[in-house]
Amino acid sequence: MKCIFFDVDNTLFPTAEFAELARRNAIRAMVEAGLDASEGELYKGLHRLIREKGSNYSNHFDILLKRMGVRRPARYVAAAVAAYHNTKSSIQPYPEVPKTLMELKKRGYRLYVATNGDAVKQWDKLIRMGIHLFFDDVFVSGEMGEEKSPSFFRRVLAQVKARPSECVMVGDRMDSDILPAQKLGIRTVRVMQGPYSREKGKADFRIRKFSELPAVVRKL
Amino acid sequence: MKCIFFDVDNTLFPTAEFAELARRNAIRAMVEAGLDASEGELYKGLHRLIREKGSNYSNHFDILLKRMGVRRPARYVAAAVAAYHNTKSSIQPYPEVPKTLMELKKRGYRLYVATNGDAVKQWDKLIRMGIHLFFDDVFVSGEMGEEKSPSFFRRVLAQVKARPSECVMVGDRMDSDILPAQKLGIRTVRVMQGPYSREKGKADFRIRKFSELPAVVRKL
Repeated sequence: MKCIFFDVDNTLFPTAEFAELARRNAIRAMVEAGLDASEGELYKGLHRLIREKGSNYSNHFDILLKRMGVRRPARYVAAAVAAYHNTKSSIQPYPEVPKTLMELKKRGYRLYVATNGDAVKQWDKLIRMGIHLFFDDVFVSGEMGEEKSPSFFRRVLAQVKARPSECVMVGDRMDSDILPAQKLGIRTVRVMQGPYSREKGKADFRIRKFSELPAVVRKL
Repeated sequence: MKCIFFDVDNTLFPTAEFAELARRNAIRAMVEAGLDASEGELYKGLHRLIREKGSNYSNHFDILLKRMGVRRPARYVAAAVAAYHNTKSSIQPYPEVPKTLMELKKRGYRLYVATNGDAVKQWDKLIRMGIHLFFDDVFVSGEMGEEKSPSFFRRVLAQVKARPSECVMVGDRMDSDILPAQKLGIRTVRVMQGPYSREKGKADFRIRKFSELPAVVRKL
């Protein structure tokens, strides 16, 4: 094995938990700023919006307040956005991630990120977590022009100049991490954490703790 | 005197200094992230862009890197935006502002913000500085639908139910703070700080330190 590819969300850090915490903090900030509504009511309205518009939609608070008929919403939007960003900007990796990445670097592996999403947003997460220097390169669907798929991985392999048999993909999702890598003959390790841990499907290995990774990769 | 209106930028906090610091930190972050360019070169390019597009344009870093022919800019954009926002989110008021606002509250004045700009952005500044609770209301051009002008102030007076002779406007600029207020007979105090302090023109009073304000308002 020469190369290890890592997914980002719910693999390197608990995305789902942070997003939820950021939303809760944003709601509390609106109430603290004087919005005449209960936390529960705001929470329900926000989640309804997320179901409708997706979680990456950036005008959630604006629309939420408009729907509630708030006449001058700027104060509450500002409070919500500040609290939301303060939470998001303090994201931390899963606690074992930095030392495991360091361990893998010491053993001579080349590490890469292979992730779906917007390139600037994914870089932002790596930089804020302080782990961007571990990676020899970062491949993001938004920059590649296609989501993770066999074709995405084929282009990544060409860029890192490696054969599938020399590579491992580490991720939490069957659909976007494990299956497309497997199709090319890339070995796979599934981290059993986050909201997708109950999906059915088989990787070459499953791990519960990120720190198991060096031993698992050696076996491959 | 019953009501005091305050401008925000360069009146309550040193906007120009913070913007400049945020830009410098963003440039350093791009170089630290590995961008092959000098700080001086980036600084010049950024300021050329600001002159072209205005300081509130939000895609400066994107465009700067595109113009430099950087092939995969996401890493540097993310580094720049994170550093820029970290600096901007730590804005502090001029050191005498909070205690002076408290002093004015104790003396029974109603305090208001009257500012140009985007309503959410101006609220964001007040909240981050921790001074939003001092104000009975906040009037922002972006929400009012017109920049500060005699008509803007006429509508503000109607909303706060006060006559011009009962009000003072405090700001740093002749064109947007002092002159339109004077036209309606609102008394004016000019704070001599920031980039507009050399503009010619006369307010009823000028102050160099924000803490002079209570004494000056009493004289009016």
